[in-house]
Amino acid sequence: MAKNTILNLLEKKKYKELKEKMSAYNPVDLAELLVELDDKELAMVFRMIDKDDAAQVFSYMDDDQQQTLLNSFTSKEIRYILDSMATDDAVDLLEDMPANVVNRLLSQVSADTRADINRLLKYPEDSAGSIMTVEYIDLSPDMTVQQALDKIRKVGIHSETVYTCYVVVRRKLVGIVTAEVLMTNEKDTLIRDLMRENFIYIRTSDDQEDAAKLFRKYGLIAIPVLDDEGYIVGIVTFDDAIGVLTEETTEDIHKMAAMSSSEDSYLKTTVFQHAKNRIPWLLVLMFSSVITGAIITRYENAFAAVPLLVSFMPMLMDTGGNCGSQSSTLIIRGLAVDELHLSNLPSIVWKEFRVSLVVGTVLAVANGIRIYLMYQNVEMAVVVAISLIGTVMVAKMVGCMLPILAKQMHFDPAIMASPLITTIVDTCSIMIYFRIATVAFRL
Amino acid sequence: MAKNTILNLLEKKKYKELKEKMSAYNPVDLAELLVELDDKELAMVFRMIDKDDAAQVFSYMDDDQQQTLLNSFTSKEIRYILDSMATDDAVDLLEDMPANVVNRLLSQVSADTRADINRLLKYPEDSAGSIMTVEYIDLSPDMTVQQALDKIRKVGIHSETVYTCYVVVRRKLVGIVTAEVLMTNEKDTLIRDLMRENFIYIRTSDDQEDAAKLFRKYGLIAIPVLDDEGYIVGIVTFDDAIGVLTEETTEDIHKMAAMSSSEDSYLKTTVFQHAKNRIPWLLVLMFSSVITGAIITRYENAFAAVPLLVSFMPMLMDTGGNCGSQSSTLIIRGLAVDELHLSNLPSIVWKEFRVSLVVGTVLAVANGIRIYLMYQNVEMAVVVAISLIGTVMVAKMVGCMLPILAKQMHFDPAIMASPLITTIVDTCSIMIYFRIATVAFRL
Repeated sequence: MAKNTILNLLEKKKYKELKEKMSAYNPVDLAELLVELDDKELAMVFRMIDKDDAAQVFSYMDDDQQQTLLNSFTSKEIRYILDSMATDDAVDLLEDMPANVVNRLLSQVSADTRADINRLLKYPEDSAGSIMTVEYIDLSPDMTVQQALDKIRKVGIHSETVYTCYVVVRRKLVGIVTAEVLMTNEKDTLIRDLMRENFIYIRTSDDQEDAAKLFRKYGLIAIPVLDDEGYIVGIVTFDDAIGVLTEETTEDIHKMAAMSSSEDSYLKTTVFQHAKNRIPWLLVLMFSSVITGAIITRYENAFAAVPLLVSFMPMLMDTGGNCGSQSSTLIIRGLAVDELHLSNLPSIVWKEFRVSLVVGTVLAVANGIRIYLMYQNVEMAVVVAISLIGTVMVAKMVGCMLPILAKQMHFDPAIMASPLITTIVDTCSIMIYFRIATVAFRL
Repeated sequence: MAKNTILNLLEKKKYKELKEKMSAYNPVDLAELLVELDDKELAMVFRMIDKDDAAQVFSYMDDDQQQTLLNSFTSKEIRYILDSMATDDAVDLLEDMPANVVNRLLSQVSADTRADINRLLKYPEDSAGSIMTVEYIDLSPDMTVQQALDKIRKVGIHSETVYTCYVVVRRKLVGIVTAEVLMTNEKDTLIRDLMRENFIYIRTSDDQEDAAKLFRKYGLIAIPVLDDEGYIVGIVTFDDAIGVLTEETTEDIHKMAAMSSSEDSYLKTTVFQHAKNRIPWLLVLMFSSVITGAIITRYENAFAAVPLLVSFMPMLMDTGGNCGSQSSTLIIRGLAVDELHLSNLPSIVWKEFRVSLVVGTVLAVANGIRIYLMYQNVEMAVVVAISLIGTVMVAKMVGCMLPILAKQMHFDPAIMASPLITTIVDTCSIMIYFRIATVAFRL
């Protein structure tokens, strides 16, 4: 179904047909489709969405459209939507709004929802508390499987996930039972005898990225969240975890290219914000490369005598930067996915040392031959080849060590990526190159 | 529990206590713990793991340890482990083994398992077929909820996931029913009336990355996999999808640093393989920077007359490279997470153009002042500042356009990242710089 179909049906007042068509759609796709409508069309079409799906569709829409709809909603509609949304989605919606709008909206929802939302709004951004939902099924250890299933039948439809139930005694979490266990055991078995007492959990104050990594490691659907006193206050579900992993990886990748990340998507970020994200690191790196420039100035006489020396500078600097980036990228990513650890430093350095010998030799030979063929200048070929080996080795050592040292010093290893490594390696490669050249050519 | 505790209990023959301690562990953690044992200890300890957990622990162990255990297993044990493993995990295990070992192992499993594994082994690597599992619950539309629940109770325990059931008529998938629906509806309702007939599915031949993206987009736990005739042949579950997303992102990140990815982890990849992954692109980039060198040679007279010109080259080249990398990284990641599309090209170019004006001006002013303060040379300060603005603008344009063009031409946008962009931008920045300098200094 395209925008045209919707508009067509809307214009011809074929509301029933439109309703029917939309009910066949997945809420995610429906939200995507609605993006193309203008404000007035949106307000009309949204009211024709299946009531059961409306809150979900609403939570998948983008901020602007949510705003538009909220403005067009009656109090009753606001109440219905916010009450039916998963609490974490409602919190996402409210988080970025001005305080007076939040208060106005919250005044229209039920007291329960308001209390839940207010609690969640208090957790710091990027904490596990901020991505959790308060809807979960709690059971008592003395229930039977049948009683548990009855409870799920009654309250389950309101929950974001029914597939893990939490066994709670005086608000403390004592065990977990999956829906699988409930569905495959005898009706009169006690929950106490089925629950798993060793379970993975997180704290409200834990970093959302750490929480998300547990999903990846253990393949879980949901993880319970405990507060500082050990009381269960909510759960984080796997779909939120996938979102967090994607978001954190994007931040890492941006950081590796010497940028801050925006809250918004690329297209929604303003030009000014884009510039602000990029300028600080560019300035730092630009001024760092002054050092390389200063070193070059010291060898003015050398390249005044042998101007050809200058033309190999880009090749040496680029190759050094690329070699260093390769190593640092491997290490940064390895650390991010918990494949590498601080304790691996010696084996990493030893491995990179040997790799750099192989890589350096291959590149040096290839380039030496190239220079000899182009200039018939054996001495120059040898000077560049030796400089290249030196550069590659320094680059790979710097590239593999700095991310680990950064982690050791509790910095984000991602800052030790291509841009910074390139700048550092530039200085080294120029020094090596001119050192060798001045000796070889007796300058 | 640490390695020492295990070894201690093993040595003192306190097998019962060891068994008990291990049964409290999550299979993932247990597998992690076993890594530290030597082959003999491993074979002993593994046999003390709870029978229900053993296959799972086994599937989480690394390749070497799996091999060690398989060698120490009796035929009966091999059969038990392979039969109890999820088919997709068994396939992962066998995929990297020599054909004769695979045949020997397969000869020991049950005929059903063998047929399933053989089928999965035939799907191309990186296809959805290769990561799917054949364990799923199929229902008929004429069943009642009660009959469905009874079936789950009987076969569910063997399935990797019971939370989505597939309604099948003559091997064709006609609808899906979640466990939630089964648990919250009346016992005598027909599945036909509850099933969702519009559902997300994938084909065996689809790319595993595309499949994984559907999980992210729709927040699904499992997706059914259909073959070319539309018959359901298996499902892909969310934990495998998280694995695929992580793996594909790692590959992208490596590609963005001009490397191929290894099958194995960093530490397990041999020095030779590491070198092989890195050398091809380094060679390409090294020889590409010959162009920049050739351009420099054309301006030998210029820097022979004004040697100071050379010392600003690294700063210009680095800044250009960094600016280009920022833009290309934003676009590559945006394309990878489906936030940006080919159709956004005009708005991206327009945005990058304005960003580059702001960024270029800020950098040029900062650097102009720096040069004036260091050298009291107004002319040089202006020449470098103007070159810098030109470089930044070219870099951002090249950086944002090439990834999109690559995608348009069905290449992976990730190759248009920092290393290649830097090499291209180098050439441009050197040309701009010397062009402006020769005019300004009348060289």
